[in-house]
Amino acid sequence: MSADGERVERAVEDRRELVNDAIAEMMPVQRPERLYEASRYLLDAGGKRLRPAVVLLAAEAVEGVEPFAEDYRSFGGDDVDVMAAAVSIEVIQSFTLIHDDIMDDDDVRRGVPAVHREYDLETAILAGDTLYSKAFEYMLDTGAPADRTVRALDELATTCTRICEGQALDVEFEERDAVAPDDYIDMVEYKTAVLYAAAASIPALLVGADDEVVEALRGYGLDVGRGFQIQDDLLDLTTPSETLGKQRGSDLIERKRTIISLHARENGVDVDALVPRERDAVTEADIDAALDELSAAGSIEYAREMATEYVERGKGRLEVLPDGEARRTLEDIADYLVEREY
Amino acid sequence: MSADGERVERAVEDRRELVNDAIAEMMPVQRPERLYEASRYLLDAGGKRLRPAVVLLAAEAVEGVEPFAEDYRSFGGDDVDVMAAAVSIEVIQSFTLIHDDIMDDDDVRRGVPAVHREYDLETAILAGDTLYSKAFEYMLDTGAPADRTVRALDELATTCTRICEGQALDVEFEERDAVAPDDYIDMVEYKTAVLYAAAASIPALLVGADDEVVEALRGYGLDVGRGFQIQDDLLDLTTPSETLGKQRGSDLIERKRTIISLHARENGVDVDALVPRERDAVTEADIDAALDELSAAGSIEYAREMATEYVERGKGRLEVLPDGEARRTLEDIADYLVEREY
Repeated sequence: MSADGERVERAVEDRRELVNDAIAEMMPVQRPERLYEASRYLLDAGGKRLRPAVVLLAAEAVEGVEPFAEDYRSFGGDDVDVMAAAVSIEVIQSFTLIHDDIMDDDDVRRGVPAVHREYDLETAILAGDTLYSKAFEYMLDTGAPADRTVRALDELATTCTRICEGQALDVEFEERDAVAPDDYIDMVEYKTAVLYAAAASIPALLVGADDEVVEALRGYGLDVGRGFQIQDDLLDLTTPSETLGKQRGSDLIERKRTIISLHARENGVDVDALVPRERDAVTEADIDAALDELSAAGSIEYAREMATEYVERGKGRLEVLPDGEARRTLEDIADYLVEREY
Repeated sequence: MSADGERVERAVEDRRELVNDAIAEMMPVQRPERLYEASRYLLDAGGKRLRPAVVLLAAEAVEGVEPFAEDYRSFGGDDVDVMAAAVSIEVIQSFTLIHDDIMDDDDVRRGVPAVHREYDLETAILAGDTLYSKAFEYMLDTGAPADRTVRALDELATTCTRICEGQALDVEFEERDAVAPDDYIDMVEYKTAVLYAAAASIPALLVGADDEVVEALRGYGLDVGRGFQIQDDLLDLTTPSETLGKQRGSDLIERKRTIISLHARENGVDVDALVPRERDAVTEADIDAALDELSAAGSIEYAREMATEYVERGKGRLEVLPDGEARRTLEDIADYLVEREY
């Protein structure tokens, strides 16, 4: 495997501007202005727009068309507005980040203050709630035939429920001593992977793809989503703090369960003793020593292999799709997610 | 006009048990248990189930059938599960209350601690978010033909957006000196009335009623919802604290804008001077004196007349429906909302 990182970045970037334009068009700052400003705040602060890119690429891959050969606002024979679906998915992602930041009491997101810091708690809760219903409005607005719209909405609603369940499991795990790696992977699936699954499968539902294709894309999303989260856990340990934009080793310091720490614990490592609990007391040398110990226990390799396995499986699922640039880009995105360094 | 209060209470009560059974069946406490316990907490604490009763009665009124002649789980010729729609509406109501209590930092709801007090802030946000998507899942699960389901979902999604906008306007108004009564009514419409409109119109959409009927029921819901909120504002001043379950005159003490205080302000009353700002310093005599002054300014009568007008208009809208017990009960509910004393 080997991702053409530059090609992936370009493919995502080419679509990002269109997605940003659509967000600005579909969610104007209207009355009550403060609510809509707060709802737009995190969306406007940036983000790779990876999930909406997956929506658009999946539509192209299903139809087997060249990049940008079709207008995303009236895509395929049924003139489906797949861009509205792409915006819907990004808006759900934004809602979950705003509420997560309140729950984790995080101050910064995408290099700007979290919404509850820039505005206030009330406005942040309400902005998240507004994005939530807007996402459903957008998904209702693709112009797809009603039966397909119902299936897309169903996927969106159950995805949102799963994300909430995943977040609740994450909180629960932090209070538990032992968590089995399989339970951790379930949590990752719920919290992170299901939104990739929705991003990949919903465009297929909307353009009327066969169930086999819909299922393949859902599986692709789940697998790359799992791989993505495991790679995130690895990067927390291996990427310099400056590049990460946060303290390297944060998960260890905060005693967060990750697939790495869970494997290490199962293999006799006293994970809680690896680094001091007080952030200020932790040195780079502490993190390096912890990384060495985790490597010696095989936990780093275990996580890397697991991430790679998921990504390979995810790519394999795309074989039911017609060969072409969109499918190849989806494969590259999968590789990119586990090869990226931040 | 005159509501047969007892008849209304019985009609709502007869349906309440069925709604409660359906909630328990449709939202079992499953893994992660704490999340679902918190999601069920406020639903299980009680509530009149007025909105789900409106859903069920509207379905009966549209079809012109006798009470309970049809099974709510497979209603009408298309076997629509209107009970799932009723639960969906109640679940949305519950989600908004949980998040509102966080925003207003209220400690008690329905005689039990607010969810963020009984559990914690994180769990309360997440419980609200879970109820939000569950409401969409339930509305997708009525078995109605896809085109009707799409319209019902559309109504539900835009209703949720309006509720958020209404809550944001409410916050905005509290920071403003002057608010025009019309703006206040807009806020009430968004914050409260739209959910009654959804409760009344969605069952009509699901059973395939004519657009004229759907619009009439939506209008009925908007009107009775407005009347309901104005009556709530009146009761805050006129009902004894013991009956209200909270301090009489709270809105005055907290300087909340209501249609009464806005009318009084426009008519030269120094509303902010009516009662002390400190709750402990306020006596029953202060509230009585304030009530006298508001009466003298015509503000009490103004609000009463407005509530009655809305309710009469709402009832009038039902004339397009076949005459029968369900329609008469919907009319009685409208009267009841402005005649109730708590």
